[in-house]
Amino acid sequence: MNSKKEKVVLILSGGMDSTTLLYDLLAQDKDVYAVSFDYGQKHKKELDCAKKTCENLGVEHKILSLDVLKEVAPSSLTREDWDVPEGHYTEESMKQTVVPNRNMVMLSLATAYAIGIDAKKVYYGAHAGDHAIYPDCRKEFVEAMRKAILLCDWNQVELIAPYLDLDKGDIALKGKQLGVDYSLTWTCYVGGEKACGKCGSCTERLEAFKKAGVKDPIEYED
Amino acid sequence: MNSKKEKVVLILSGGMDSTTLLYDLLAQDKDVYAVSFDYGQKHKKELDCAKKTCENLGVEHKILSLDVLKEVAPSSLTREDWDVPEGHYTEESMKQTVVPNRNMVMLSLATAYAIGIDAKKVYYGAHAGDHAIYPDCRKEFVEAMRKAILLCDWNQVELIAPYLDLDKGDIALKGKQLGVDYSLTWTCYVGGEKACGKCGSCTERLEAFKKAGVKDPIEYED
Repeated sequence: MNSKKEKVVLILSGGMDSTTLLYDLLAQDKDVYAVSFDYGQKHKKELDCAKKTCENLGVEHKILSLDVLKEVAPSSLTREDWDVPEGHYTEESMKQTVVPNRNMVMLSLATAYAIGIDAKKVYYGAHAGDHAIYPDCRKEFVEAMRKAILLCDWNQVELIAPYLDLDKGDIALKGKQLGVDYSLTWTCYVGGEKACGKCGSCTERLEAFKKAGVKDPIEYED
Repeated sequence: MNSKKEKVVLILSGGMDSTTLLYDLLAQDKDVYAVSFDYGQKHKKELDCAKKTCENLGVEHKILSLDVLKEVAPSSLTREDWDVPEGHYTEESMKQTVVPNRNMVMLSLATAYAIGIDAKKVYYGAHAGDHAIYPDCRKEFVEAMRKAILLCDWNQVELIAPYLDLDKGDIALKGKQLGVDYSLTWTCYVGGEKACGKCGSCTERLEAFKKAGVKDPIEYED
């Protein structure tokens, strides 16, 4: 590690948005400490992707277990007996994929990590496409968390969500420019061997690649 | 449970402040769901106290494990090789007892719990005596968290810290009026069989009881 580089914490899900942000931060010469969360999601492949990407790029990576969130707050992403909804998200079906307060829990732990290693910035990949239905991806939420995080410790930590005004297509385009290896990203919520191509997340991913004019390198079931 | 009672979540440490708040909420006829956090603290007795108090009062109680916080952020309250400071807190010694971002982590999980059980309020016992040195007990922090929590879900959850303007003596006085069983509260940070009577927490507790003109019913080492 070059001690002159700025130390930052990144919440890395292993999906395309946060993985693009990782490449973006490395291109800005940041000393990135990536943190992923295992909250009992059926789509564990995203964690494998996060791990491999960090290995390939020589980035410090930590996977934190959030069993506690599964215990307090069930959702279709973690409960075996709840099905992940198919097709374009409707307001109702996307709501079933909301893990209550997941983002605040992840942000609070990423901030604790930042305080512990004396990093002054926490990055996260919330983007415009999420705002409509995920309450904790809204700009107002991110802004409120930014203020709370600035106040939670004497050493100020800043929360930065640079993709808040981009949609997933913009992010794919940026990733193309940055040379992101999207074969090591995972988006499908169902948790099969290959991506299903049908769930709300797959649908959005495929549209994003189409918009960016990039071929999605992962395999789909159909 | 009477379905007409208002369902609320309370963060219950097992110390005197949150235990007083529990009695306070029951006196207001709330349907209280108490939640305690095991973050690897040496003073586990506070968790036993929380459990017994809830059993005695017939209150639903959950203890959530926060091993993850110990993993990301060490402090003298959780690390075997760090001593808990003695005597009146100085700024420096109190800082050693700060578990980085503990309150935000606990608030975020208590909120997830509230969302899951459809409770609209989360109570917590931060008070004026803590403000000076714990960054995440300051009013500005609580206010920022209140805003973030209101935004984190479509069903608004409100964070309420009713003791924010009271000191520990005021709280002991209130507890006297409410008939709080303070023999089932634990404050000492050291983690011995009896309270040490010397650490910053014991010092503050003893002063609070003195101010309120109440005898502290727990046993001290000396």
